[in-house]
Amino acid sequence: MSSQLWLLFLSFLLFHPLLHPCLPLSSAHPLDPLTAAEISTIRRVIQSSHLGASKSLAFHYVGLDEPDKPDVLAWAQSGTRGRRQRRRAFVVAPLRRGDARDRRRRHRRLRRLRPGLSRFRTLEELEAAAALPLNYTPFVESARRRGVALSDVVCSTFTAGWFGEAGRGRRRLKLLCFVAGETANFYMRPMEGITVVVDLDEMRIIGYRDRVVVPVPKAEGTDYRAAKQRPPFAPETKPGVVVQPAGKGFRIDGHVIRWSNWDFHLSYDARAGLVVSLASVYDAEKGARRRVLYRGYVSEVFVPYMDPAEEWYFRTFFDAGEYGFGLWASPLEPMTDCPANAEFMDGYYAAQDGEPVKLPNVFCVFERYSGDAAWRHTELGIPKQMISEVRQEVSLVVRMVGALGNYDYVTDWEFKTSGSIKVGVSLTGILEVKGTPYTHTDQITTDVHGSLLAENTIAVYHDHFVTYYLDLDIDGLNNTFIKSKLKTARVADSSGVPRRSYWTVTREAANMEADAHVEIGSVPAELLVVNPNKKTKMGNHVGYRLIANGVPVASLLSDDDYPQMRASYGKKQVWVTPYNKSEKWAAGLYVDNSRGDDNLAAWSQRNRAIKNVDIVVWHTVGFHHIPYQEDFPLMPMLSSGFELRPSNFFESNPLIRLRSTKQTHLPNCTLIV
Amino acid sequence: MSSQLWLLFLSFLLFHPLLHPCLPLSSAHPLDPLTAAEISTIRRVIQSSHLGASKSLAFHYVGLDEPDKPDVLAWAQSGTRGRRQRRRAFVVAPLRRGDARDRRRRHRRLRRLRPGLSRFRTLEELEAAAALPLNYTPFVESARRRGVALSDVVCSTFTAGWFGEAGRGRRRLKLLCFVAGETANFYMRPMEGITVVVDLDEMRIIGYRDRVVVPVPKAEGTDYRAAKQRPPFAPETKPGVVVQPAGKGFRIDGHVIRWSNWDFHLSYDARAGLVVSLASVYDAEKGARRRVLYRGYVSEVFVPYMDPAEEWYFRTFFDAGEYGFGLWASPLEPMTDCPANAEFMDGYYAAQDGEPVKLPNVFCVFERYSGDAAWRHTELGIPKQMISEVRQEVSLVVRMVGALGNYDYVTDWEFKTSGSIKVGVSLTGILEVKGTPYTHTDQITTDVHGSLLAENTIAVYHDHFVTYYLDLDIDGLNNTFIKSKLKTARVADSSGVPRRSYWTVTREAANMEADAHVEIGSVPAELLVVNPNKKTKMGNHVGYRLIANGVPVASLLSDDDYPQMRASYGKKQVWVTPYNKSEKWAAGLYVDNSRGDDNLAAWSQRNRAIKNVDIVVWHTVGFHHIPYQEDFPLMPMLSSGFELRPSNFFESNPLIRLRSTKQTHLPNCTLIV
Repeated sequence: MSSQLWLLFLSFLLFHPLLHPCLPLSSAHPLDPLTAAEISTIRRVIQSSHLGASKSLAFHYVGLDEPDKPDVLAWAQSGTRGRRQRRRAFVVAPLRRGDARDRRRRHRRLRRLRPGLSRFRTLEELEAAAALPLNYTPFVESARRRGVALSDVVCSTFTAGWFGEAGRGRRRLKLLCFVAGETANFYMRPMEGITVVVDLDEMRIIGYRDRVVVPVPKAEGTDYRAAKQRPPFAPETKPGVVVQPAGKGFRIDGHVIRWSNWDFHLSYDARAGLVVSLASVYDAEKGARRRVLYRGYVSEVFVPYMDPAEEWYFRTFFDAGEYGFGLWASPLEPMTDCPANAEFMDGYYAAQDGEPVKLPNVFCVFERYSGDAAWRHTELGIPKQMISEVRQEVSLVVRMVGALGNYDYVTDWEFKTSGSIKVGVSLTGILEVKGTPYTHTDQITTDVHGSLLAENTIAVYHDHFVTYYLDLDIDGLNNTFIKSKLKTARVADSSGVPRRSYWTVTREAANMEADAHVEIGSVPAELLVVNPNKKTKMGNHVGYRLIANGVPVASLLSDDDYPQMRASYGKKQVWVTPYNKSEKWAAGLYVDNSRGDDNLAAWSQRNRAIKNVDIVVWHTVGFHHIPYQEDFPLMPMLSSGFELRPSNFFESNPLIRLRSTKQTHLPNCTLIV
Repeated sequence: MSSQLWLLFLSFLLFHPLLHPCLPLSSAHPLDPLTAAEISTIRRVIQSSHLGASKSLAFHYVGLDEPDKPDVLAWAQSGTRGRRQRRRAFVVAPLRRGDARDRRRRHRRLRRLRPGLSRFRTLEELEAAAALPLNYTPFVESARRRGVALSDVVCSTFTAGWFGEAGRGRRRLKLLCFVAGETANFYMRPMEGITVVVDLDEMRIIGYRDRVVVPVPKAEGTDYRAAKQRPPFAPETKPGVVVQPAGKGFRIDGHVIRWSNWDFHLSYDARAGLVVSLASVYDAEKGARRRVLYRGYVSEVFVPYMDPAEEWYFRTFFDAGEYGFGLWASPLEPMTDCPANAEFMDGYYAAQDGEPVKLPNVFCVFERYSGDAAWRHTELGIPKQMISEVRQEVSLVVRMVGALGNYDYVTDWEFKTSGSIKVGVSLTGILEVKGTPYTHTDQITTDVHGSLLAENTIAVYHDHFVTYYLDLDIDGLNNTFIKSKLKTARVADSSGVPRRSYWTVTREAANMEADAHVEIGSVPAELLVVNPNKKTKMGNHVGYRLIANGVPVASLLSDDDYPQMRASYGKKQVWVTPYNKSEKWAAGLYVDNSRGDDNLAAWSQRNRAIKNVDIVVWHTVGFHHIPYQEDFPLMPMLSSGFELRPSNFFESNPLIRLRSTKQTHLPNCTLIV
């Protein structure tokens, strides 16, 4: 039985008394995520429509259908926040062919966008699929052969990728199974050699292979839970907490956050996770708020593994498009995930049945007092004077953790009073390891595609490519991407000076998309987004520049390899496209079974004009991950990221005209345990 | 009159009752910097010797002559801390030819090392030189022509570099003059077009040229002092302080710092600044302390400017070798330079007359509670369980700020409980600007070698190359440098899997120095220092890897350019040399007037064997600096750095076996103002 998938488009008025009788006005921002009540309403509307009759109706994605950018900008500028807003949802709900043919009950608020193969999957489906092997005779036999108790088995769902198969095929998943039992860290105990293929629509196993029996690594040393640790313990550290004697400096008003010179909107989406919108910075000198970022979020996370074995070759995950970077977000733990002075926000997604599910503490917001200075100078050059001026650095961090199965991605947006936005992504969590007969590297004579971290345990080489969507609107809508290239120049012999060389700067404005595919570091250059219609008093174009905080990483897969085709944007760290509302997801709207024909690189082949238009920067932060023993059984944080830094945006350093906020009195504290 | 310079070598017994009657035993570490009492003793010994008769005797450098490494290691291992230590000082004291010929009074403790051209200079000399123009008639006339009051003039000293002149020449400096007056920020107000050349030994002006009159930029908007700021003020932030209810977690015992799993020695040197020695990490599993870094410090800071004009071409500073990165260190301000929970240490250097000078608060040491996790994982894969384990990150930071005239370099060493050492360098302070007639970029039609930041103010393009000396001793003396190269491999068509490519790792051990000159990022590779004589239980060589925290930067000057010859190591970010006690300074022992014949690249031309011997890694953190208006009148912090991360050093993640130190009770604080 094949399935036909539908896209549904829901449009309704916000503040309809029946829908949100008590929604506070302050949250009526057009970019606010769907509330629990709105998600419930959507479910009711759809279930009362002609679609409701379908037994196979399932909610794969329910989220805000972002209003058109001009409308949002007009709303933001008008500031008439109490105004009734037209709100629309974007719903992906697959229906099997033949279901819901009764068009008489079609709801006036429902609009079928276009048929498509959504290829999303719900948490409920994954859970159901993961339970299948336990009742599947061949698997029960495989477990017996390995001496594994079925009660200890945990199976996990893995996307199957696309490897040149013709036709759209079925909605398939692969399962790989592990042994938990004495340890929570089942990922370290693979039942190597077994592959299970599941048809998700039929929810049954359609393929099974037990290729080879390999020892299951032992549980000892794999558990990471505090309660399971035994001496010798690692040396401890003393606790420390940030205290703010004058209170917090930020205000959360619905989803709008206001702090120091920054103002932005923070929303949750099941696919993207944390979305920052309408970030603007107050320019004290101009007495005006100035736009920086219309919308920024993690658009895709591509994670290919580097082992071509049958149980491994397909592990080429697209964590946002195939799983949902927000759907898999972790509730943040106060005092450890975020410091004592953090505030938390919740998120809501729709369950498979359309009911809203609360994700508590999905974001945290806190002020960071890193102990660094924002700027300083000591001046000894003026006779008989000693000048020392130092300003403390304070920044605001918003954080979400996407825990995609084994891996945890800590994603931070740090707003600085200097006007910078620092974006950080840190990897932690658990590696994917392969069972092996090896117990010592001396036994290894061939390429094992990974590192032997423990007996029978090879952590496989892999990459992480976190691609950010950055719709920068630097001081206005129309921007231009600039490469400021540094080039060596010779000093003329006739110059009269003995110096022979220097470097100078050539600014190249990108006219077309092809001019803006950048492999960072291949030539020395600074990358800027400027507003060519606005200049400083000195005549410099106002802008921001992108600074990578790590050695640039690009995909090393062959261009003709299937995962590389699907993530074909991964060979350049920067792409620039003209703003297009439908181009949100670097690997395409429907990523499962995708073929790279609807991704960033495909769109960009049109080579559209990008000069002095509304542009979007796509920046990929990459990691090549060669595992080391310290990554066993759970890896310490490994961080990278980038900075968006004002560059001729302000007339001068905006932090000079700061009344010194130097803290001279220490708070007097007592700890009550 | 020409001068002859001498090197003096002082050897005396520590704890000689006459010298240090009450030196506490705990500070008797062979790597401790010279104490004030020891500096005084050195002065007395030299002045009572045959050298004391010389009227020109001046102390250019007085510092510890580091004992031989085997002796230090033996001392550190024996732990017999009360033992009498032989201490030696390294003294650079120039004497004019003909002075101090009376060899009868030669002190038994003094040994002339070898004659050389020290080319060091003292703060007193710089101050005296900077005052010369005010009494120099041609300069007084130049000031008058520019309408500048002499009382507002501040002159600064600039090293002249070497540009192919034959012979060793005189000890020269160039002076450039500025207008202070209403502003403390005289650097923003150059008296462009004037160059003054000073002979330091004769302390007189030997060259003067007033080439062109250019408007002096106005003072308005240049002052950075809080007291001088006027509205509109920048938005403020709320104060925050770290409180440690259970006290600090580190102990400073003389110059040895002990914190969590780390133990290291911290010392001050007038040239290098902050020196970290004998850093070792406690391995709880092995129950043993294991060596990581024998000695690490900033070896050189090369800062070439990119304007070939007569007043600019020579600005190619070597801040450590020509000025003294420690000599120019700033006293750190509590609460802003370092947080409330910091402790401070003092340093001592010798004044020109040999008397000790205290540099208060030259270092600070504090625990950082960044609000990040050290590791985390949320596990949803086990049915009916939700596991979330998060450990708070706490690290220890040691910091020094070198304020080299206009620029301030914040140099941090951050020790992590994971075993990582993160080294950070942040630039702030004031740019060097060039006076210009331009008041708007529209007027500019040629390359002005910089950015117009304010009227009549061009900030000139330049670089910063901070070169670190890293004598790693990973778990022992003999180490090997490894490049783990990532290379794309093809999947054989016969493999039966549809995957076409992957990457794998080729480990290349560097046999000779030439194998270890690395341009980071030119090929995808990880860089490791391993101990080939020690393996983990799994058989992996124990090691640390070097991770650059920024896009790698290399010098763009032509190889035949004089400053490039002097800093010829600057085209590669990594060099590895066999340990050699005399190879400490990347640009050579005597940098002023150097020709590149005694620098890292020159030593390395011998292409010595570096495999499984005691090796030193030299790593350069670079910045190309294109100034932007935000850098005016004082730049916000711009940061880079690197991480030394354990890589198969531990058997597993050392932070798993941590008793959770989760802080669940908030301290109750009151602020008494």
